[in-house]
Amino acid sequence: MSTKGSMGSQIVTDPPKGTRDFPPEDMRMRTWLFNNFREVSRLFSFEEVDFPMVESEELYTRKAGEEIVGQLYNFEDKGGRKVALRPELTPSLARLVLQKGKAQVFPLKWFAIGQCWRYENMTRGRRREHYQWNMDIIGVPGVEAEAELLAAIVMFFERLGITSKDVGIKVSNRKVLQAVLEKYEIQADNFAPVCVIVDKLDKLPRDVIESELAKINVPSEAIDGILKALTLQSFDDLEALIGAESGAVGELKQLFALAEGYGIQDWLQFDASVVRGLAYYTGTVFEGFDKDRKLRAICGGGRYDRLLSTYGGLDTPACGFGFGDAVIVELLKEKKLLPKFPHVVDDVVMALEDSLKIKAAGVAAQLRKSGRVVELVIEKGKKMRWVLKQCETLNAKFLVLLGTTEWEQGGKVTVKNLATREQTVKTVDELIESMSALNV
Amino acid sequence: MSTKGSMGSQIVTDPPKGTRDFPPEDMRMRTWLFNNFREVSRLFSFEEVDFPMVESEELYTRKAGEEIVGQLYNFEDKGGRKVALRPELTPSLARLVLQKGKAQVFPLKWFAIGQCWRYENMTRGRRREHYQWNMDIIGVPGVEAEAELLAAIVMFFERLGITSKDVGIKVSNRKVLQAVLEKYEIQADNFAPVCVIVDKLDKLPRDVIESELAKINVPSEAIDGILKALTLQSFDDLEALIGAESGAVGELKQLFALAEGYGIQDWLQFDASVVRGLAYYTGTVFEGFDKDRKLRAICGGGRYDRLLSTYGGLDTPACGFGFGDAVIVELLKEKKLLPKFPHVVDDVVMALEDSLKIKAAGVAAQLRKSGRVVELVIEKGKKMRWVLKQCETLNAKFLVLLGTTEWEQGGKVTVKNLATREQTVKTVDELIESMSALNV
Repeated sequence: MSTKGSMGSQIVTDPPKGTRDFPPEDMRMRTWLFNNFREVSRLFSFEEVDFPMVESEELYTRKAGEEIVGQLYNFEDKGGRKVALRPELTPSLARLVLQKGKAQVFPLKWFAIGQCWRYENMTRGRRREHYQWNMDIIGVPGVEAEAELLAAIVMFFERLGITSKDVGIKVSNRKVLQAVLEKYEIQADNFAPVCVIVDKLDKLPRDVIESELAKINVPSEAIDGILKALTLQSFDDLEALIGAESGAVGELKQLFALAEGYGIQDWLQFDASVVRGLAYYTGTVFEGFDKDRKLRAICGGGRYDRLLSTYGGLDTPACGFGFGDAVIVELLKEKKLLPKFPHVVDDVVMALEDSLKIKAAGVAAQLRKSGRVVELVIEKGKKMRWVLKQCETLNAKFLVLLGTTEWEQGGKVTVKNLATREQTVKTVDELIESMSALNV
Repeated sequence: MSTKGSMGSQIVTDPPKGTRDFPPEDMRMRTWLFNNFREVSRLFSFEEVDFPMVESEELYTRKAGEEIVGQLYNFEDKGGRKVALRPELTPSLARLVLQKGKAQVFPLKWFAIGQCWRYENMTRGRRREHYQWNMDIIGVPGVEAEAELLAAIVMFFERLGITSKDVGIKVSNRKVLQAVLEKYEIQADNFAPVCVIVDKLDKLPRDVIESELAKINVPSEAIDGILKALTLQSFDDLEALIGAESGAVGELKQLFALAEGYGIQDWLQFDASVVRGLAYYTGTVFEGFDKDRKLRAICGGGRYDRLLSTYGGLDTPACGFGFGDAVIVELLKEKKLLPKFPHVVDDVVMALEDSLKIKAAGVAAQLRKSGRVVELVIEKGKKMRWVLKQCETLNAKFLVLLGTTEWEQGGKVTVKNLATREQTVKTVDELIESMSALNV
């Protein structure tokens, strides 16, 4: 039997279209990003949750014409069930809240970091998956909840060195549009579809938006009224349009007052053009954007008080946001705020003679048990030059060498401090002690 | 427009068949487990990687009759591509190594923690997904590599309080079977299928195994020889069967000698019955098991020197293991070693009057900036009794109350130490200072 493999024909070595591998350098960045998501969520006392990557299609088939539903990565499983790779996390969260029912005590403050999928028929190199950080508060009707979410987003930006000169968060409230629709006596059923259509104002020409609104029977004077409302950027103008006693005005003003309490007011601006493209938002909506206006939205969220009832539960106040892993990295690159993520090793351990290989394993084991990150040289016949190069690649602090002469003197090793080039001979116990004393 | 949602018909609130939600309590356990996987890998100087959840089917369609391929969660995507939810991580790793090609310097020491999927046609409540921790070494031909992997597995067990009285690792080498097959002049093509069949000896009656071997034209005297070889549990018997100069014997002895160097010899035992069910192993194979023999294998791995060449690359020495998230948790429960994972909060902050809500947000923001985990009470009209109960649920250390009288004395708050019941009045700066001095 030959030990040579029969060379098969070469497989496609790229990951499937629209997906990513995470080799070490990319994974270190992902871990750094996720740790920041996680740490901010933790400081806000949110608890981490997760949901299946595969969900029933029915969780997503809303009828408002959202982009996210049009691009569902759905398929039939082998049992004939209609399933989808989750396009977002909120519906799964709502499902879990419904399932747990009365066993849980509101408010729930949950966060999740999960991969989400889409499938466009016409792709131009766009990715089919991304990771999303979500924070959600279930059971709190007041804008105090939204304020917590916005404060968490700002804390995240600040941790990364981003300032309110780089990024802003546009805030509005869907009740503004609701008030306008009521003024024109437009059916409540049309609320979500109208929101989804006008959310595309950034991307589509105005006449396309107008004709889409006309298609769902929005009268032309109402269209003008809606589009005009979306241009508002001050509370005075807003009050002039829908009245100071409107719920939308009250909520927005209260939210901005709370923002001052948190010290995040510089980050926020009222902008009625923010609607968000998800059908289920009912109140506050917001969107993080780069002030150079080069990038897509960085994050977005809002209040969705009726999502649970559309799933057959009781109306349950809820709000949350999604924060993707793509645009933020573009922004950090743009602003030169992305740190380097080197692989870092404490010690490289090597036996200078093959007869000491087994002893070297013991030295590595002892150092690791003391909490040190150890690269043990397990290749045969490597020269000192190779090892020193390896130490450099790994950013090692110490090179620990086992030679017969020193080892036979009561198990001593030669230790090279790779920063100072200083070389000493000591036992492994002495080594661990000296490193811990030096805090290196 | 009504603010009451029209109650939809209730959706199915369970996660799809065979999948799991991770509510907070389950997620805390998962995080704890993954952190242990990650920390051990880090101490061994392995770098984390990840791969797409969806891969091309061709990555898995090997022809040896493996269970893992028979249970592939595959489907056709909307572009007509044959894809699968990954059943394991090793093929993706091999694909990535091939893709990076000459850009990388061997050895690679990589680890991954990823979700893997299967789809059985007949399921009896078995899960369709699990998480798997993998560690792999690419580019090292000697058993020094396997020794590192085994040492890492043992370190993981030890961190969790598991001893070699609870768990053992059976070790063998597929070159044992290879030598037996050569003795009976069985075609090399039949090596992988024979391994896959005899791996099922635990689960299927002997006569089924025999007839499966006969089906692929293994002569009956060879069948007897193979099955006898699998009963060996000592190096002496092994040498008697295949000769002391056999590669299998040399590798096994060297591996056990290295294990002594690491101090993990108590965990290992030679047992030729270990074959593992994956077609691609070529040398060392091993399997972690509970000594009470109540559970399925805890982890398993081995050397797969020809996987890259079956994908069209060059033969590249490689070995690795997979360690699932299910059996280890069963074992920890069995041994009462599973810790409690409470939600822990430092401070609960509440305004006693609505007029101080905005100030309370500022207090929470300040405490969080100092690194404290803060639950801000954002519900309206909560009574002290509710808040104290909430403090208990959250395992909070301090309750920080804002009342008008104290707040007007230069921004003072009332701080209740929930462990000692001691109550003090101070500014937030003083509070942060005292907590940091007490290290609480």
